Amino acid sequence: MQIAILLYDGFTALDAVGPYEILSRIPGAEVVFTAARPGPVRTDMTSLALTADAALGEVTAPDLLLVPGGPGTADVLADRSTLDWIRRVDETTTWTTSVCSGSLLLAAAGLLTGRRATSHWICLDDLPALGAVPTPERVVLDGKYATAAGVSAGIDLALHLTGRLAGDETAEAIQLVVEYDPQPPYSTGSVTTAPAPLVTALRASNLIVGAAA
Amino acid sequence: MQIAILLYDGFTALDAVGPYEILSRIPGAEVVFTAARPGPVRTDMTSLALTADAALGEVTAPDLLLVPGGPGTADVLADRSTLDWIRRVDETTTWTTSVCSGSLLLAAAGLLTGRRATSHWICLDDLPALGAVPTPERVVLDGKYATAAGVSAGIDLALHLTGRLAGDETAEAIQLVVEYDPQPPYSTGSVTTAPAPLVTALRASNLIVGAAA
Repeated sequence: MQIAILLYDGFTALDAVGPYEILSRIPGAEVVFTAARPGPVRTDMTSLALTADAALGEVTAPDLLLVPGGPGTADVLADRSTLDWIRRVDETTTWTTSVCSGSLLLAAAGLLTGRRATSHWICLDDLPALGAVPTPERVVLDGKYATAAGVSAGIDLALHLTGRLAGDETAEAIQLVVEYDPQPPYSTGSVTTAPAPLVTALRASNLIVGAAA
Repeated sequence: MQIAILLYDGFTALDAVGPYEILSRIPGAEVVFTAARPGPVRTDMTSLALTADAALGEVTAPDLLLVPGGPGTADVLADRSTLDWIRRVDETTTWTTSVCSGSLLLAAAGLLTGRRATSHWICLDDLPALGAVPTPERVVLDGKYATAAGVSAGIDLALHLTGRLAGDETAEAIQLVVEYDPQPPYSTGSVTTAPAPLVTALRASNLIVGAAA
């Protein structure tokens, strides 16, 4: 089973690495990081680069596609060749998935038309213009399309997918391997639990460099 | 404020990237990934490399040191030059921290003698031989030393550290930015909640390539 994770300048690291840490541990999984050009690809915070080992053209038939989000999404929305690649490989995937604003790219590729999808909370309102039905849940499955909310939600998404791909027992084992027993020190991880003034302040700030245009 | 994240062959990606995603968003933080040799450093699962932008010798006085874990820990335990570097930069850090089996490296460097520390559940029993007091909690703070349990626990650790470094309001905001409102699909993330046969099977398996020797 080949799992392709798309990289592009300005993606958010955890969007890609959270799911990677889970999915790469599925027995028989082969993960390939791919980008327009192979080599190091800088994240949104610029102090980290992940290596893309394959050019997009070398990845033609992954079983699972994962598209992370990040501020770089804005540029990829205007990059026809990458959107074409997403659309082309989707023709034969078993699962086409995204984290954070990555769902805007799936939608822009025409894959989420009329489908329920989620995204980073600050991007949810951008989905309808791209044809998708915004659904403010942490993980949304609609057919073979699976989308996750912002950044850290990719870990939950990947565990759900692992259950579907390899069975609950394997997913349960991997959850223990990565000791995923989260204990967030604050209750501000969601717009439904964070204080309204914090949400308003973040909408107006530049702290969310991970948000799409 | 300089934050140094140590990379070495066979580290676990999420150990480093989970904290990075939080800590790099602290206003004024400058993160540097560092390794014995600059360039791409392969993770335990081998299908991903993160770029180390600086050699260890170029990073002399970080304010915060973070040491990830992974199966590569076993080799670093025998690598005197890296342990010497950890000990040297610790002399001036404000915080010296680890995720997963990274605490074995701090202990081997002599920094956790008599101190409470945690680690991946499969490595906890290795701490006493290195002088530390194993403490099966998700995040353990003892003086300026902060250790996290396995892999995903680095996210919780980093939010705690952010609260100490930049105040609760900043940490709360970053938690919302990365939408850290975890909803694990299974309850197997901890040895205290996972079925005993699963824990036993994993101890005997090779599924935990993230465990130290």
